[in-house]
Amino acid sequence: MKLNWGMIGGGEGSQIGPAHRIGAQADGLFTLAAGALDADPAKGREYAQRLGVAPDRAYGDWREMLEGERARADRVDLVTVATPNATHFEITKAFLEAGFHVLCEKPMTMTVEEGEEIVRIARATGRICAVNYCYSAYPMVREMRAMVRSGALGRIRVVVASFSHGHHADAANADNPRVRWRYDPAQAGVSGQFADCGIHALHMASFIAGDEVETLSADFASTIESRVLEDDAMVNFRLSGGIVGRLWTSAVAIGRQHGFDIQVFGENGGMRWASERPDQVWYSPLGGRTQIIEKAEPALGEDAARLTRLPIAHPEGFAFAVGNIYVDLAAAILGETRNGLPRAEDGLRSMAAVMAAVESARSGGAWVDARPPMFR
Amino acid sequence: MKLNWGMIGGGEGSQIGPAHRIGAQADGLFTLAAGALDADPAKGREYAQRLGVAPDRAYGDWREMLEGERARADRVDLVTVATPNATHFEITKAFLEAGFHVLCEKPMTMTVEEGEEIVRIARATGRICAVNYCYSAYPMVREMRAMVRSGALGRIRVVVASFSHGHHADAANADNPRVRWRYDPAQAGVSGQFADCGIHALHMASFIAGDEVETLSADFASTIESRVLEDDAMVNFRLSGGIVGRLWTSAVAIGRQHGFDIQVFGENGGMRWASERPDQVWYSPLGGRTQIIEKAEPALGEDAARLTRLPIAHPEGFAFAVGNIYVDLAAAILGETRNGLPRAEDGLRSMAAVMAAVESARSGGAWVDARPPMFR
Amino acid sequence: MKLNWGMIGGGEGSQIGPAHRIGAQADGLFTLAAGALDADPAKGREYAQRLGVAPDRAYGDWREMLEGERARADRVDLVTVATPNATHFEITKAFLEAGFHVLCEKPMTMTVEEGEEIVRIARATGRICAVNYCYSAYPMVREMRAMVRSGALGRIRVVVASFSHGHHADAANADNPRVRWRYDPAQAGVSGQFADCGIHALHMASFIAGDEVETLSADFASTIESRVLEDDAMVNFRLSGGIVGRLWTSAVAIGRQHGFDIQVFGENGGMRWASERPDQVWYSPLGGRTQIIEKAEPALGEDAARLTRLPIAHPEGFAFAVGNIYVDLAAAILGETRNGLPRAEDGLRSMAAVMAAVESARSGGAWVDARPPMFR
Amino acid sequence: MKLNWGMIGGGEGSQIGPAHRIGAQADGLFTLAAGALDADPAKGREYAQRLGVAPDRAYGDWREMLEGERARADRVDLVTVATPNATHFEITKAFLEAGFHVLCEKPMTMTVEEGEEIVRIARATGRICAVNYCYSAYPMVREMRAMVRSGALGRIRVVVASFSHGHHADAANADNPRVRWRYDPAQAGVSGQFADCGIHALHMASFIAGDEVETLSADFASTIESRVLEDDAMVNFRLSGGIVGRLWTSAVAIGRQHGFDIQVFGENGGMRWASERPDQVWYSPLGGRTQIIEKAEPALGEDAARLTRLPIAHPEGFAFAVGNIYVDLAAAILGETRNGLPRAEDGLRSMAAVMAAVESARSGGAWVDARPPMFR
Repeated sequence: MKLNWGMIGGGEGSQIGPAHRIGAQADGLFTLAAGALDADPAKGREYAQRLGVAPDRAYGDWREMLEGERARADRVDLVTVATPNATHFEITKAFLEAGFHVLCEKPMTMTVEEGEEIVRIARATGRICAVNYCYSAYPMVREMRAMVRSGALGRIRVVVASFSHGHHADAANADNPRVRWRYDPAQAGVSGQFADCGIHALHMASFIAGDEVETLSADFASTIESRVLEDDAMVNFRLSGGIVGRLWTSAVAIGRQHGFDIQVFGENGGMRWASERPDQVWYSPLGGRTQIIEKAEPALGEDAARLTRLPIAHPEGFAFAVGNIYVDLAAAILGETRNGLPRAEDGLRSMAAVMAAVESARSGGAWVDARPPMFR
Repeated sequence: MKLNWGMIGGGEGSQIGPAHRIGAQADGLFTLAAGALDADPAKGREYAQRLGVAPDRAYGDWREMLEGERARADRVDLVTVATPNATHFEITKAFLEAGFHVLCEKPMTMTVEEGEEIVRIARATGRICAVNYCYSAYPMVREMRAMVRSGALGRIRVVVASFSHGHHADAANADNPRVRWRYDPAQAGVSGQFADCGIHALHMASFIAGDEVETLSADFASTIESRVLEDDAMVNFRLSGGIVGRLWTSAVAIGRQHGFDIQVFGENGGMRWASERPDQVWYSPLGGRTQIIEKAEPALGEDAARLTRLPIAHPEGFAFAVGNIYVDLAAAILGETRNGLPRAEDGLRSMAAVMAAVESARSGGAWVDARPPMFR
Repeated sequence: MKLNWGMIGGGEGSQIGPAHRIGAQADGLFTLAAGALDADPAKGREYAQRLGVAPDRAYGDWREMLEGERARADRVDLVTVATPNATHFEITKAFLEAGFHVLCEKPMTMTVEEGEEIVRIARATGRICAVNYCYSAYPMVREMRAMVRSGALGRIRVVVASFSHGHHADAANADNPRVRWRYDPAQAGVSGQFADCGIHALHMASFIAGDEVETLSADFASTIESRVLEDDAMVNFRLSGGIVGRLWTSAVAIGRQHGFDIQVFGENGGMRWASERPDQVWYSPLGGRTQIIEKAEPALGEDAARLTRLPIAHPEGFAFAVGNIYVDLAAAILGETRNGLPRAEDGLRSMAAVMAAVESARSGGAWVDARPPMFR
Repeated sequence: MKLNWGMIGGGEGSQIGPAHRIGAQADGLFTLAAGALDADPAKGREYAQRLGVAPDRAYGDWREMLEGERARADRVDLVTVATPNATHFEITKAFLEAGFHVLCEKPMTMTVEEGEEIVRIARATGRICAVNYCYSAYPMVREMRAMVRSGALGRIRVVVASFSHGHHADAANADNPRVRWRYDPAQAGVSGQFADCGIHALHMASFIAGDEVETLSADFASTIESRVLEDDAMVNFRLSGGIVGRLWTSAVAIGRQHGFDIQVFGENGGMRWASERPDQVWYSPLGGRTQIIEKAEPALGEDAARLTRLPIAHPEGFAFAVGNIYVDLAAAILGETRNGLPRAEDGLRSMAAVMAAVESARSGGAWVDARPPMFR
């Protein structure tokens, strides 16, 4: 009863490809049935077959795959788009319009207008357009969200998020193409580190708090001379319920490996989580002691319990956060409601927030509306 | 070019089953082609088919599977034995003798004699008999072993290991059959917590240090009245090169979730690792500062690099430690040498160590030979 | 050869009093010779005598003490001002003008103009006016500063500081006078949490980086309805050399006990420190592993070594950070140069930064000049 | 109303001297009134005067001090003995017999017989003979003891302690006299690392559990060839109530700076504490989450509250653990009961345990009676 799955991009040597392949297949929910895995058609075809795809479904590019799959009775149930950012919109649009469910890597689009178009198409076609904000699928992130919803923390007051690393800190390596493109407007668009990493943290703040970003004020810095786009950014924001947000992101934070951390403070308690130890939440009820909530402990919420595979204190890791996106996708494809699944609306909101941050940073930190026009 | 894989035990609801299924299949190396998954034949057949096994290879029990598979041209390349402990010997023996490669859950056997027999059969048949000491397949454990081999720490002086948890600490729950059997000689054999958890730590001490356990002295305690077998044990040991070992294991250590930790001290440095944060090693060169070695950092050893799927600071988790056993198995089945793979000899040595610890504890901590007779 | 020391404020039950008494006396450098310890003259006299002060030097108030001490041949060598904030200026001014050295609790004054006046008086009289930014006197904070000065990190790019706690998070307790005054403009002035805690972090950022704050942009929030002043603030800033700064401070961060942390990122390395584990710095050279620098390890810089009393891994604690201010004060009084000692200029700069942050927050995050007029 | 205090040993450059001077004087309870601080009489006299001792009470040696002080009306109320180990007995005995209260550094004596003699003298004279097991005076250690006494953990089952460091791991430095003497029977007696560090951990296990050590089994190792005495030891023990104990101590654990840790497991909960973060206890109630108890949090027990000087999350450090011994000594001298104060009986029990461990290690780990004859 496995679903058929197709992948575009994520070829040999790609960084995100393995996490998708492991995540989609680890639970036996999807079979890699088709792929257009590489910008080089021959390489892509060869690699797909090495991964077990039948020769006639090992495509040279996404257009070929679109043609090939739409004609089949056993067409893929889901297409993952893991190509370079600038192509996400076009491919996602085409597959949605052809009636496929899509999981798009972030960013979903390069402009707000494109984002709104994807939302409209997804709504019109009734197809699922998910966006891979995979950190939100860690069981303990779901648990934090459930705790907020349950009222355990009371009204949320402040959310403090950061996503910082030092992997782009070496000035001598700044012209390496693998690094350089992220800070080059011609390739990366209007934002560097904020769009690349910060946006995960912004999504998570909103995801856990259960409110949308309304306004923000940004301070961007490029700390290496040759860079145009920011490699360090601070964004203050307000969520719809008046929640105060602070978000720091950096690519020059030497010593931080993957410093994606979030703290949530409400009237009646606080919580802390870090992506480098994703299986624990530190929870502090007002007036009480800090206590450590463990993945797979008894009596966690429905989402956390459902998305956990291994016993307590057996680390599950990043690939299963991606895997949980696929778990929820499989369920959603089969008609179940999966509220935690990040969708086109989230991709759109993120794009609007990136644009707002750029505008704010350019105008000296002015507070600007961060909502996409269609949601104002 | 996937290998065909069969599983015995690990049915629905089993604790170790998911880790095997995820581990074997996550990297696309094995396909679950056959199974006898449950003590209840009907349940086992039904579950196997739900997992994608063809109806004629969804067997009711291991004997049926042995008959069925040995007759096939496309017989499974590897059989995993994840049944109750007392059956490991019989099943492993039968499949090895029929020419299958086997991955056996620990303990491989219930007696030293059986262990020696398995070693002899594996050697005679040329089949691989691996034993699932999966913690040794974490990339950073392999890195520690490589560091010892490289001489970075000089001669090793002391290894200190522990494997402690508190999940059997509730006296009110001691008669729950899921807990009780572990401390009942009729079901668990001669040892409780040491054979169950401590033995992983003893294997790892030997694995990292690169030397075999020669002698040991044990102190066992049963801290809950109704228990016959030990739920807390301390074992002092000596490795072949004179290395001093200390190993504490407990099932009544309330607050420890999965406290499997190891410290290795040599002439020129020390190292620390913990299974709850498996992607880091704390390394302290003599006279220098403690430094944190990260999984997937540049310039790790061949084994650590090969067994890593995700970028630095993206946790990989327990299932991929099991997965790494399968990675090495696939390579070994295809004829490559994989020295890190734990084999029947390790399973035998563990059994001899358990017996030695029981004997020592019974005789007031006397030092006893921990080697199996065939290796003396 | 002990110096005579007098204290104003810090009476029985005060929070900061014990740290001053322990800090000043632990090293045998100062003797408490005079005091006006309490707003209640009788209580203050009684308590001073209980602490060993001679009856004729146990004063009822600071004016009485000023008169009494200025007349004595054995007048105190140093006066510590630990009274309510609004009185710091008046008392500090009076004692400096009378020729005493002063250690003033922060904030040194309530306005920038007063701050400039203190700086002028200190310069004119040649008296030392120190301000108790005691965290900067932890040996490992001094070590971080020395590392920056030595060039080990290259040019500093980004400093990220936070000082957050949750001790004012209970809305039900917000009207408790011990909490309420901090958020009441009539008692606390123009700023709440930023002036109270954030300013320590801002001072430290500047102290370690070795540059002064030039401009800043602030976002203030009052998360409890009855509060006028901010209980949560984010301040972006720039130091003179173009260094980018981010500073978050909160009093409603439930679960953070004393979350004063700092991260410093340069071209060639990064460092992290936290006031809850003050004896360690995590240092990450560019391209290398994170390493843990320990207080009292061999070969630390002169300042760190000089201000350390106990062997490695014997925690020294907060009282000795205060004590280190007294160590440097004793040396400075005896004529030695102590560059690390925070002085009136630092107190003035802090006041200007508070005013700038208030102005920025009121004007929607506009970037404003944070320098005191006399230093522009 | 300060008490007069005299010190023997602890001269300039000594490691333990500063902790005593800070600890005794930080709270204003004792004044250093007399001293025989150095083996070199001239140096000792000079240093004592530099520390503020009057010339006629700056003695050349302990006998001179005994003569001088016993003749004075204002004789010291307490004498601290911090001389080389082999002299503790003689000096302590002499001062007790002369009617002084004594705080003796550990080990109190070199033999069990001497220990029994000190106990008898202390009892006969009614003088206090305290022994500086200062770690037991950390407020959070007192809190753990109070929790055990209150029954919060139920019957205690297992105590696991370790005290390990790597400061004697350098073989090239093993002949340095500052290290060498500890492993030389002629200077250190019968035991090296166990008597030096392990004994603190054994005392603490007994102190927290509230029971005495009855039997033990030891495994000693000398990991550097030139050493006679052990630099690594494991001791299994049983406390009077049947509590199981495990204790590892090492001086060759490179990377451990001051690894004094303790874990206590009872029927209803577990606790963990580490001397490198002494202000926190991790407490895990059976079936509940691990929670972090903080020094100075509300509602701690009487002892923890009384021995705390600074607010929550302001680290207090090692010197105040020593200081707490002096706080309790001052109270005891003034006639109050201070049950937590370690006394001659504890010093004697420690000596008996050292002897028992040596005997056990020599006889292959045999279980031996660890009680002093006078307490059997």
